[in-house]
Amino acid sequence: MRDLAGDLSLLSINTATLRKQLALSAVIETCARRGIGGLSPWRDQVQAAGLAQVARQLKDARLVLTGYCRGGFFPATDAAGLRAALEDNRRAVDEAKALGAPCLVLVAGSLPDALAGKPSHKDIGLARAQVHDGIAATLQYARGVGMPLAIEPLHPMQGADRACINTLEHALDICDALDPGRTGALGVALDVYHVWWDPKLTGQIARAGAERLLAYHVCDWLVPTRDLLNDRGMMGDGIIELKKIRALVEAAGYAGHVEVEIFSDAWWSRPADEVLDTCLARYQTVV
Amino acid sequence: MRDLAGDLSLLSINTATLRKQLALSAVIETCARRGIGGLSPWRDQVQAAGLAQVARQLKDARLVLTGYCRGGFFPATDAAGLRAALEDNRRAVDEAKALGAPCLVLVAGSLPDALAGKPSHKDIGLARAQVHDGIAATLQYARGVGMPLAIEPLHPMQGADRACINTLEHALDICDALDPGRTGALGVALDVYHVWWDPKLTGQIARAGAERLLAYHVCDWLVPTRDLLNDRGMMGDGIIELKKIRALVEAAGYAGHVEVEIFSDAWWSRPADEVLDTCLARYQTVV
Repeated sequence: MRDLAGDLSLLSINTATLRKQLALSAVIETCARRGIGGLSPWRDQVQAAGLAQVARQLKDARLVLTGYCRGGFFPATDAAGLRAALEDNRRAVDEAKALGAPCLVLVAGSLPDALAGKPSHKDIGLARAQVHDGIAATLQYARGVGMPLAIEPLHPMQGADRACINTLEHALDICDALDPGRTGALGVALDVYHVWWDPKLTGQIARAGAERLLAYHVCDWLVPTRDLLNDRGMMGDGIIELKKIRALVEAAGYAGHVEVEIFSDAWWSRPADEVLDTCLARYQTVV
Repeated sequence: MRDLAGDLSLLSINTATLRKQLALSAVIETCARRGIGGLSPWRDQVQAAGLAQVARQLKDARLVLTGYCRGGFFPATDAAGLRAALEDNRRAVDEAKALGAPCLVLVAGSLPDALAGKPSHKDIGLARAQVHDGIAATLQYARGVGMPLAIEPLHPMQGADRACINTLEHALDICDALDPGRTGALGVALDVYHVWWDPKLTGQIARAGAERLLAYHVCDWLVPTRDLLNDRGMMGDGIIELKKIRALVEAAGYAGHVEVEIFSDAWWSRPADEVLDTCLARYQTVV
């Protein structure tokens, strides 16, 4: 197992962690100044700053990307909606390529319009079929561009509105169906927050192996958790066995960055420097 | 698939649904008056009313029990704690027997003291091992008394504090390990709220079969869900495919009651009659 203490080159900051405090350019600047090795930006933040400008700033700052967030949200209520989702995913692939990201993270989506609080139907089986087809079509395009796709299974509590792929096993089943050759074109983004509870986690991480483990995200599960979306904990403040899971991931062959992604009203309300100081300290001690 | 319209004999009310409005004796009285067939009471409510008194009232009211809530919470930090949990579960078995319940529902428990917000460790593997041993020991006692045990897998969002058994597959694995003969002594309480999201649900319900399906609970998953514990929806107000799941359960051989269990600050704040009227209407139309 790799020793992270004293070495920030394997640390990556998902820019959602500081989305309420800093614009993307400021996140890039402060991460580079601290010697943090990687960054994983969100599309809306990149669009706000301008794609070319962000690509230039990242290059100048010598920051490595560890993913691009996010594609996905494939389900729709009609053919036009399904087509629009595919077009949007192709644009996301192109943007990831322009930024030099190692993978495009896919949050599958689930019941159409559920995110707006008005799900248009309840058929999760249909949503899963549309997700399967959407990933297949996007994969075909992404292979041509040379951009790996990383399916992120989300916690089952987000199964109705954000993603109908809710276990690592399910994500890997899709990977095996669409990329049986394990070519590296399709894999998973494994976030401890979504999978820590899974009784099959150990076996499925081993099954994934280096070819499928395209990204590794950390934060923590608070007890109690007060919100289904924005109450993630700082590493060490919750009950996730961070070192145990990282050991499993590295034993399976993962050699990439450790990406910190914390959606938290509590941490968003603190100064960016305090958040980053804490991320750096915890990364070197409890992750 | 059974036709529930116009027949309340297969309806059961879990008394938690009205716990803020009515004492247990009043719940029994109003359910009997409405012609509801079954009831599933909680231990604290039974203790408050007195075991013998409740048993007498249930008999007089000709209400069938569909379960007794609940045993479980096996994990502990030391041997004394583990022993105390087993003793408490034996008492729960005895109470279930005295009331004539068809099964004792087990909520496994997870990290010790997590329910109080102060988990004493993070080792969910240890908690799972203690749960396995606790069920094994309780099963031995319960077999002697003739009281079936129904493991209730809880939603993964309750995996840290309430139950470390979070999928039907995991619950059935334990059943198969401890009761390979499928004797009826050990099974599951299947609550749609906890399992609706599971991509393996169809196959696991078929695997369970009549011998393992000891109770069936309904409510609904709201979009959005605002609380991890007390924001369950009334049947029909959320996105769970209630008829589809009941069809699967009945196709697997389940012939028991349909138990309504709604933990909801919103429904607890409404008059008991309004809640029951709505339960009855929804039971006959959308369940």
